[in-house]
Amino acid sequence: MIDQTTLDTIALDLTKLNSTKKRFETITSPESKIIDEINDSLLWGAIKYFRKNNFVWVEVPTLTKITGACENVDTLYALNHFGQEAYLAQTGQLYLEAKIPLHEKIWTTITSSRAETAVDNRHLNQFTLIEMEHQGDFETMLPHIEGAIKSMLSETLDKRAEALQQINRAQEIYDWIHNPFSRITYTQGIELLQAERFQDNRNKNNNLKWGDDLTSTEEAQLVALTGNKPLFITHFPREIKFFNMKVNDQDESVVNSTDLIMPYSGESVGAAERENNVEKLTQRLLESKMYSILAQRGKTVEDFRDYLDMIQKNPLLHSGCGIGFNRISQSVLGVDDIRISTNYPLQSDKLY
Amino acid sequence: MIDQTTLDTIALDLTKLNSTKKRFETITSPESKIIDEINDSLLWGAIKYFRKNNFVWVEVPTLTKITGACENVDTLYALNHFGQEAYLAQTGQLYLEAKIPLHEKIWTTITSSRAETAVDNRHLNQFTLIEMEHQGDFETMLPHIEGAIKSMLSETLDKRAEALQQINRAQEIYDWIHNPFSRITYTQGIELLQAERFQDNRNKNNNLKWGDDLTSTEEAQLVALTGNKPLFITHFPREIKFFNMKVNDQDESVVNSTDLIMPYSGESVGAAERENNVEKLTQRLLESKMYSILAQRGKTVEDFRDYLDMIQKNPLLHSGCGIGFNRISQSVLGVDDIRISTNYPLQSDKLY
Repeated sequence: MIDQTTLDTIALDLTKLNSTKKRFETITSPESKIIDEINDSLLWGAIKYFRKNNFVWVEVPTLTKITGACENVDTLYALNHFGQEAYLAQTGQLYLEAKIPLHEKIWTTITSSRAETAVDNRHLNQFTLIEMEHQGDFETMLPHIEGAIKSMLSETLDKRAEALQQINRAQEIYDWIHNPFSRITYTQGIELLQAERFQDNRNKNNNLKWGDDLTSTEEAQLVALTGNKPLFITHFPREIKFFNMKVNDQDESVVNSTDLIMPYSGESVGAAERENNVEKLTQRLLESKMYSILAQRGKTVEDFRDYLDMIQKNPLLHSGCGIGFNRISQSVLGVDDIRISTNYPLQSDKLY
Repeated sequence: MIDQTTLDTIALDLTKLNSTKKRFETITSPESKIIDEINDSLLWGAIKYFRKNNFVWVEVPTLTKITGACENVDTLYALNHFGQEAYLAQTGQLYLEAKIPLHEKIWTTITSSRAETAVDNRHLNQFTLIEMEHQGDFETMLPHIEGAIKSMLSETLDKRAEALQQINRAQEIYDWIHNPFSRITYTQGIELLQAERFQDNRNKNNNLKWGDDLTSTEEAQLVALTGNKPLFITHFPREIKFFNMKVNDQDESVVNSTDLIMPYSGESVGAAERENNVEKLTQRLLESKMYSILAQRGKTVEDFRDYLDMIQKNPLLHSGCGIGFNRISQSVLGVDDIRISTNYPLQSDKLY
């Protein structure tokens, strides 16, 4: 056992956990103990929020049809389920949505799988995804996201103050808890970046313009420009977002969506009001880039039939989000490598 | 929304959820609402127990090497992870054990995947598995299992009394909470069954004898013979159990293991003290039936090297268990079909 006295007298170096190599050795280090304790409190903080606010836990499958995919269909793991092609779920969102007629608010957590080829400091092939879904609109949802994240942070600051102090993270976490998160629209974000002439790693013939997705560097620049605290970027262009995000009534070029950008780790929560008009939903599906990729692989609208039927039968307005647990953890740890946030960082070069 | 008044005035029939057919319709029924609420409280009760008793949550992978398998290696889902053969984890046990040097008590929850071919009332291809691991021996562990299960039951009786009453389950759950669980050894179990001439569905030339695994019918008979409440059966024959279960000091024919048998659902928890002597552990691995199956598939002792090295480096005595959430749920619901316990019962004939 590594006791507190030992911890107090050694220099901590979280970066020893930034590699998939020799993992069974590094994860018994004193640094790993601190990370585990922080992660434990972060998870508890989220669950506590759901409990306090009457979110009902709902079990969802992680071996699914194509409806377990999010917009990243290029990163699906496929396997054989007794003769049927199955996928490792990236999200349980559509399975949660099916339960919305019964419950005002629900949540779940899954191990999300993404077959990312990159072996880098930003991508894991598996991570803990916490998802919530509730009746109501976009503006009802934002306080739930901020509330859940702040509950995660507060629980950690309350119960793991010593661990946070040892890695010099207590003050910044305190500041994030005691100030409102920043909020800008995607359009404002583009304007800010253009005004600041932040063009990051785009090449000269490909300057940033409205409609582009934001790179992680651009997200970090926006965080720096808006107070170095968690930042909601809202109302992204419809073309670059998941088909069931509801188009904005006032401006049909954008959807009622938000990404929460955390300092250090970037996009940590993806959220949206869901389209609840089945005609519009079907139309958006058919127009989506995701669908065109799927169509090339032999998928049709019938693969989404259960979901479309369900929305037709129960067109209640609802909204929801997915919280990437490891991005939150990375942000709390204040490190530039997501592999530090977890014991078994799965990447394309590694299995445990 | 289905409100309480509606619920009170309709006859509830849980058996409408005993099929994988038309699932997106049945899971919005009033019965499904009650089941969700009970499951929510069962999960919360478990997490509450872990929190109260200082178990630290640890994230584990569900896409793993062969060390994500439990004894059921015949039911592994295999897939391709960038050129390496990977499996859907059946348990996170070995990954939890790696963290034992850092923490006295830990827990996790995963979606366990088992490629069971059966489409029946007892087997799901995926279910929620709650796992705990702690320093200490077998007798230290049993109160944690009973404590965690009773916390699940108590939370449900406290917060979902109305739901339990509507399905006529409150009294029996109350009795389970307020009495100690029954406890017999495997050997006593065999003797009881032989004395009662319970031979269930074994054929006449294959009477029950010491060394046989127990069928679900025999488990149910033992529950009936020991007070119709949760029953610990301890000290199973080493030959039929997982290789890392520690052999008993007094009787080398058995291991320090237990199965918790719940009324209605049967085997719901599997638990054991772990072998912490690396020579014995390696020997047991090589002798195991699991290993002989794996060897036929080209696996060698090297596939277990990380685990064996880890035990060699940190031979702390530890014990742990896996709680099959849906078997507990089925038992609380008092139904004979595990498909009723979950919204999306995955079976070989079905994907969602």
